[in-house]
Amino acid sequence: MHFKLAFIGFGVVGQGLIEILIEKKNLLEKKYNFTYTVVAISDLFKGSVYDKNGLDMEKILSIIKQGKKLNEYPFGIKDMDSISTIKDSNADTIIEVTYTDVKTGEPALTHIKTAFGCNKNVVSTNKGPVIKESLNLIKIAKNKNLHYGFEGVVMAGTPVINLFRHTLNGMIIKDFRGILNGTTNYILTKMEEGMSYNDALQKAQELGYAEADPTGDVEGFDALGKVVILTNVILGKKISWEDVKRKGITEFTKEDIELAKNEGKRWKLIGSAEIKLDGTVNAKVWPEKLPINDPLAGISGAKNALTFNTDELGEVTIIGPGAGKRETGYSLLIDLLEMNKKFS
Amino acid sequence: MHFKLAFIGFGVVGQGLIEILIEKKNLLEKKYNFTYTVVAISDLFKGSVYDKNGLDMEKILSIIKQGKKLNEYPFGIKDMDSISTIKDSNADTIIEVTYTDVKTGEPALTHIKTAFGCNKNVVSTNKGPVIKESLNLIKIAKNKNLHYGFEGVVMAGTPVINLFRHTLNGMIIKDFRGILNGTTNYILTKMEEGMSYNDALQKAQELGYAEADPTGDVEGFDALGKVVILTNVILGKKISWEDVKRKGITEFTKEDIELAKNEGKRWKLIGSAEIKLDGTVNAKVWPEKLPINDPLAGISGAKNALTFNTDELGEVTIIGPGAGKRETGYSLLIDLLEMNKKFS
Repeated sequence: MHFKLAFIGFGVVGQGLIEILIEKKNLLEKKYNFTYTVVAISDLFKGSVYDKNGLDMEKILSIIKQGKKLNEYPFGIKDMDSISTIKDSNADTIIEVTYTDVKTGEPALTHIKTAFGCNKNVVSTNKGPVIKESLNLIKIAKNKNLHYGFEGVVMAGTPVINLFRHTLNGMIIKDFRGILNGTTNYILTKMEEGMSYNDALQKAQELGYAEADPTGDVEGFDALGKVVILTNVILGKKISWEDVKRKGITEFTKEDIELAKNEGKRWKLIGSAEIKLDGTVNAKVWPEKLPINDPLAGISGAKNALTFNTDELGEVTIIGPGAGKRETGYSLLIDLLEMNKKFS
Repeated sequence: MHFKLAFIGFGVVGQGLIEILIEKKNLLEKKYNFTYTVVAISDLFKGSVYDKNGLDMEKILSIIKQGKKLNEYPFGIKDMDSISTIKDSNADTIIEVTYTDVKTGEPALTHIKTAFGCNKNVVSTNKGPVIKESLNLIKIAKNKNLHYGFEGVVMAGTPVINLFRHTLNGMIIKDFRGILNGTTNYILTKMEEGMSYNDALQKAQELGYAEADPTGDVEGFDALGKVVILTNVILGKKISWEDVKRKGITEFTKEDIELAKNEGKRWKLIGSAEIKLDGTVNAKVWPEKLPINDPLAGISGAKNALTFNTDELGEVTIIGPGAGKRETGYSLLIDLLEMNKKFS
């Protein structure tokens, strides 16, 4: 099937997807009968361009890589903002990858609702809208027979959401626990190798794992958002930001790590939620001292892992990357191919 | 959608599926719009029964649990053999779970081809036909727009086949390695805890993990069959039984295990295959000494695990049960729901 795509936001993740779409054009057409035209891009900083007949994406990537703005592109309509790009372009599918406030979900939430309002599909890696309104957005999309894909909001392209939504069907999931933040896991791994917290944090910042202000990661807020998403989408229980107990890793010392090591254990920052007997949810992000033969204890570096506790299979664990340009870009391809399958 | 099911073979796996189908009847109808009637069962030892209007499966299970034969069932046509049940019943979907020779693939292979010949879907946990002719059977099913599901042939209901076929789309998988046999992994885990090979094997036999003649497991033949399947289906390269190098775990002593432990390593029986630069495949089942921080080193007891090396995500690992009545029965439910989605 052929899709007309519009990118709202065009940072590393969107560029990652475009690289994959260009490189795999033939494979996608031959194996999945998936073909595409990118008709529009609108980015707050890089400008915007729209051509109803399609943009030359190799040219676009080359412009962006030179640090230039999109109005350097020789054809098309320039300066349409994100809302008019969604509403007035001929795109049928919106790729929502803007820089978004994780608490309010904006501007992504408005973009997604606008797209649904115009009967356009959405694939997005933005956590904010999924934290705030996943069940509502899923319902709107379902009622309008549109596709809303958000595989990338937890563990990048490692297919945890689709594993549950499209593969582990008929299963009841009672609880989950996971290593949902690569930065803190990297820091804890380095501390286990002998580094102090501060040195490990600095190393993580040098490698681009941690931001200049690392609070979102090290205090557990990033993992918390993912616990909210998984609780809503996978356990099917509506909770919000405030319902999750949280403790980060900033107070850890080399001694804490050593002490656990001597007991044959490892500290990991674990995001988890379980449905209690009364039907309410116990959700938290909290450091846990795991025995070395726990599958999650073996997850080192920036990797992520998630264990579902299921009624039919007991524990099922999936391990994979939790971040990265191509890895997160690929999550959007999973969503696009799922959409292609749905409508073919 | 409504399906009419016929069971060819009715051992523990088929009974496991029936238990799930009975218990989850409402969930399956409400959530997936999947409804079913079991119209026939034909088993070499338990006899057979066919009623075009459907069998009372609670009654059937109760008969079987009392050790009685299916002709005790008060209604329906008795004594149809497997082939006539496939051909002459009004079933649209054949659940092929006979006891089958893993090398020749028979009688399952003939059952599956007969079903396709009558335009009936097949879901099956039988490894033999998939080892021998997976690509051919997939092609026949595809050309006739039938469903052929075989999730259970590797790692029971842990969804490795569907993870690849329906979730990790657009990905190129370059190689895989895994712990594909729970019995040998259980024995190695017990030896690590101090048992001798013979004691660990006996314990595995007591628990029902290993058969009276344990050759298929401990000499690596079971894992070998799964390497053939994964190489054909996931790497897309046609290989057969003879193309896989094999060494089992029968020669291991407590000393070998201890020696590795002192190096901070663990012996695991690893099934693996990689596509070489010249396009040929290097496939083997061989004991490997893994560093303790390898995700596969942490897999203890009867669990299975599989790591795919992918072009977009690097390593993705899935861990779950590798055997069991409900666990393998559940694999058939995954296949049935995938079929339901395809035809809805």
